Amino acid sequence: MQVKKVKLTRVKDKDETVEEDFVTIEEPLHIRVCDENCQTFAIIMRTPGDDKELSIGFLYSEGVIEGLDDIREIEVRDNTVDVWLNKELKVRARDLIVSSSCGVCGRAFLYMVSIIKSETKVNKELIFSLPEKLKQGQNAFNITGGLHASALFTKNGKLVYIYEDVGRHNAVDKVIGRLILEKKLPADSHIMQVSGRLGYEIVSKAIKAGIPIICGISAPTSLAIDMAEEAGVTLIGFLRGKSFNVYTHKERIV
Amino acid sequence: MQVKKVKLTRVKDKDETVEEDFVTIEEPLHIRVCDENCQTFAIIMRTPGDDKELSIGFLYSEGVIEGLDDIREIEVRDNTVDVWLNKELKVRARDLIVSSSCGVCGRAFLYMVSIIKSETKVNKELIFSLPEKLKQGQNAFNITGGLHASALFTKNGKLVYIYEDVGRHNAVDKVIGRLILEKKLPADSHIMQVSGRLGYEIVSKAIKAGIPIICGISAPTSLAIDMAEEAGVTLIGFLRGKSFNVYTHKERIV
Repeated sequence: MQVKKVKLTRVKDKDETVEEDFVTIEEPLHIRVCDENCQTFAIIMRTPGDDKELSIGFLYSEGVIEGLDDIREIEVRDNTVDVWLNKELKVRARDLIVSSSCGVCGRAFLYMVSIIKSETKVNKELIFSLPEKLKQGQNAFNITGGLHASALFTKNGKLVYIYEDVGRHNAVDKVIGRLILEKKLPADSHIMQVSGRLGYEIVSKAIKAGIPIICGISAPTSLAIDMAEEAGVTLIGFLRGKSFNVYTHKERIV
Repeated sequence: MQVKKVKLTRVKDKDETVEEDFVTIEEPLHIRVCDENCQTFAIIMRTPGDDKELSIGFLYSEGVIEGLDDIREIEVRDNTVDVWLNKELKVRARDLIVSSSCGVCGRAFLYMVSIIKSETKVNKELIFSLPEKLKQGQNAFNITGGLHASALFTKNGKLVYIYEDVGRHNAVDKVIGRLILEKKLPADSHIMQVSGRLGYEIVSKAIKAGIPIICGISAPTSLAIDMAEEAGVTLIGFLRGKSFNVYTHKERIV
């Protein structure tokens, strides 16, 4: 299963309809390397399906195996792949490098969500105005077409900070780092607007910073929706022109 | 510096012009945590600039610090940030989780590029045809609008495999895993086509699999271009309709 049906409120100018739509499933896959016991080598956030191909490709890319001959046995179960090697494991999980699009490369575990109890409410027109404000602040994107941006707005729609980075989670970390430097955490009366899609990494970071409203120009994942629901966060996707979808906690939109 | 000027060949239908354009800079940032000595906590691929904000936000997101009070001193140099904490480091680098967009979470280091000596050449019309073929195979994207795809084509333009995932690097790993399962590595007469941007993670994985031509619908990063140049790989970006940009090794396009 790669997709899942969810309920959402589609806002289009003055109209609002409750509809169903499909979102991409995002779930953790545990890749374990085994001899007598199995040890976690990596936990990958991925869309379920083709877990055997994914694990083998991942172990190859990481330099753990050089080909199929290095694998003695591979067992695929729900969200876990156990791999027995024909050779000693030389790569340690601790040698990990964090890629430009790796946001969750840390100890933080799924569903360590804090509950955000913000009373912040905003109106639709303010939400409609965010993408244009984000775009105006994207200096480097406008030059290269190859950067993500993350911006923080007050509940009145005033731009507080905007950061760009090749990694979407880096842009979010820059905003949060700035909030920390200015001792403004939790940012519980603010709105975060990102240029890309809304996955686990973006939403978990924003929740940790106490941000009650998260908007993206593109689609959310199933996991992002589940986390936002549980944390009390309003999650808005496909924010384009005078329309957007509200996936969770619509009560903040008035 | 967030952007860098590069030379490229812009192909538009039958025309070809050599031009200059800006690409986003992607470089590794070493985040080190120090007491008497400094130890690497993480290496993050990022766009330079705002490294202090990024490091603080990253350490907060990872649960290393809870606020500015936990930091005694922070020193930012070229591509390195050293952080002295007021408390014991409780999170170990080895507890890392790999996010859905984390492709390089492994030992593989920058510039461990192998040289690809493929004689494969393809014509422009074949390249023009790839995005449409990719799109036709993107089942789940067409439903949700929230997935990346990676496809492998023969040098004659025949689709070999296509995989989708919420993480762009996962889609690439699935293709490579399948190649390994079918004992078809190196894929040195093939073309890889991806739905998104071309960063370090995508290009390094494809190079490791021996793929001589890598195409993307969107922008490449500076690091992707450098690696492709060195590896002998033809890197094509902004492949849309009857146009694309060739950043490296144009000799394979006839």
